[in-house]
Amino acid sequence: MEHRGVSAFPLTPLDEDRLDEAAYAALVARVVASGVATVTALGSTGSYAYCSRDERAAAIAIAVENAGATPVLAGIGATRTRHVIEHADDAASAGAAALLLAPVSYQPLGDDEVFGLFRDVASATDLPIVIYDNPRTTGYTFTPEMYARVAELPRIASIKVPGRPLAEAAPLLERIRSLVPPHVSVGFSGDGFAVGCREAGYDAWYSVLAGTLPEIALRVWETGDDAALNPLWDLFAEAGGGLRVMAAIAEQNGWAAPACLPRPLIGLTDPQRARLADILAHLGM
Amino acid sequence: MEHRGVSAFPLTPLDEDRLDEAAYAALVARVVASGVATVTALGSTGSYAYCSRDERAAAIAIAVENAGATPVLAGIGATRTRHVIEHADDAASAGAAALLLAPVSYQPLGDDEVFGLFRDVASATDLPIVIYDNPRTTGYTFTPEMYARVAELPRIASIKVPGRPLAEAAPLLERIRSLVPPHVSVGFSGDGFAVGCREAGYDAWYSVLAGTLPEIALRVWETGDDAALNPLWDLFAEAGGGLRVMAAIAEQNGWAAPACLPRPLIGLTDPQRARLADILAHLGM
Repeated sequence: MEHRGVSAFPLTPLDEDRLDEAAYAALVARVVASGVATVTALGSTGSYAYCSRDERAAAIAIAVENAGATPVLAGIGATRTRHVIEHADDAASAGAAALLLAPVSYQPLGDDEVFGLFRDVASATDLPIVIYDNPRTTGYTFTPEMYARVAELPRIASIKVPGRPLAEAAPLLERIRSLVPPHVSVGFSGDGFAVGCREAGYDAWYSVLAGTLPEIALRVWETGDDAALNPLWDLFAEAGGGLRVMAAIAEQNGWAAPACLPRPLIGLTDPQRARLADILAHLGM
Repeated sequence: MEHRGVSAFPLTPLDEDRLDEAAYAALVARVVASGVATVTALGSTGSYAYCSRDERAAAIAIAVENAGATPVLAGIGATRTRHVIEHADDAASAGAAALLLAPVSYQPLGDDEVFGLFRDVASATDLPIVIYDNPRTTGYTFTPEMYARVAELPRIASIKVPGRPLAEAAPLLERIRSLVPPHVSVGFSGDGFAVGCREAGYDAWYSVLAGTLPEIALRVWETGDDAALNPLWDLFAEAGGGLRVMAAIAEQNGWAAPACLPRPLIGLTDPQRARLADILAHLGM
């Protein structure tokens, strides 16, 4: 598989704190129908860090079943290497095409610990691995040198780098490309930086927005124009990222039950939901 | 039970990445024999954030069995409220006397989410709860006002506050005492701050050191003198906290198998182990 283009990160919606299998299947099917390149099940937006092993295995199976020919990537992160490898095995059994791995931590991790995690997982699986750099949730910040060190391992197929404005994203991409093997694609996350990172030449957009509103994300990726989405990015920033906003969109459209996020996470406030409804109306949704 | 004095935080040692039940039982028994006030099983030093539900339940049962009349507190933190409540139920079934709860996060948590977590857990258990504030591992920083808001809930018995030098610890304690109900004890963690926090009048020392070298910790608590331990505190700081140092002490003394920490965590380097051996020799160990 190619790690290029738009990868959609759907929610893993809950109903009364249990995996809502029907809602999840419908979300994945809708996303795939839009023509995204890949679906990443159990990304951060898919609440992987809140799901039990059983829930994760069930979610990957549902995603694969409903994705047709579109490859499904599976988030496998956990604090403990043993559990990460269990998740990798389960994902492979369920038919995932690749794995997404962030160095999830409780005790802050050093470089040798992060390298050891990727080394141990890479030697325990046959699937391609995407390095997932998300300092905000993991507490670990990759340097370009650490991307390079980990990318030398077998099975590393792509890197998911935090997005930045064009002026920073372009030189960082150049630096990463000078350090990592050419077969490793470089993608970004952070939907508000999509236009700049696209212009900088990143290979892939690991997209929260595409997991819920894929047509809008694909239009941004095609045209390089997201001017109409600025109010949405403002709401992302205010709500601590896209997760709570996507949950509100899904709830508002009846694609997920009310309060579809895992507790203790709380969705948007009522005033934020009212603003969101306005934003979506202006977008013609 | 009283949440006062020294609470010992033993390691949860692994052998070949599996819970080392015999080593754990012996660690708990040795700690209890020293006369600590309480034992906290599955604290951060007890690697709760790396253990499966089954491992946690087994560890609490072993701790209770080996603690005799000494009360056992049980760490129950997890990213998801549902899992926290499962751990609380398991701890109660295993005979724990109280629960230690940190707002473990993946998505950074807001104040209402942290309050909701404690509210939901407090209404699901009959055991006393210790609020565990550890910004370094959870990414969430309590304000004194948040201590007060959570401490108003039923069952909140104590707060475990990050230690500070006396000049900061004393006014903070005064502020907390002015805000929280008088039945809520205020303890600290951060062994290097034990002397200052003791002098400031904190009720309890939630102690990493006491989980492995309880006699030394109890002497510090009794005398208010830790001058001989400064090289140890330096090593704690260099090794990212006391966990890796305690693991090396246990391994060095044959109280735990080699590499007793959960992967991806890596123990001390060989030069650090050599320094540690020197430090312990100077302490007469």
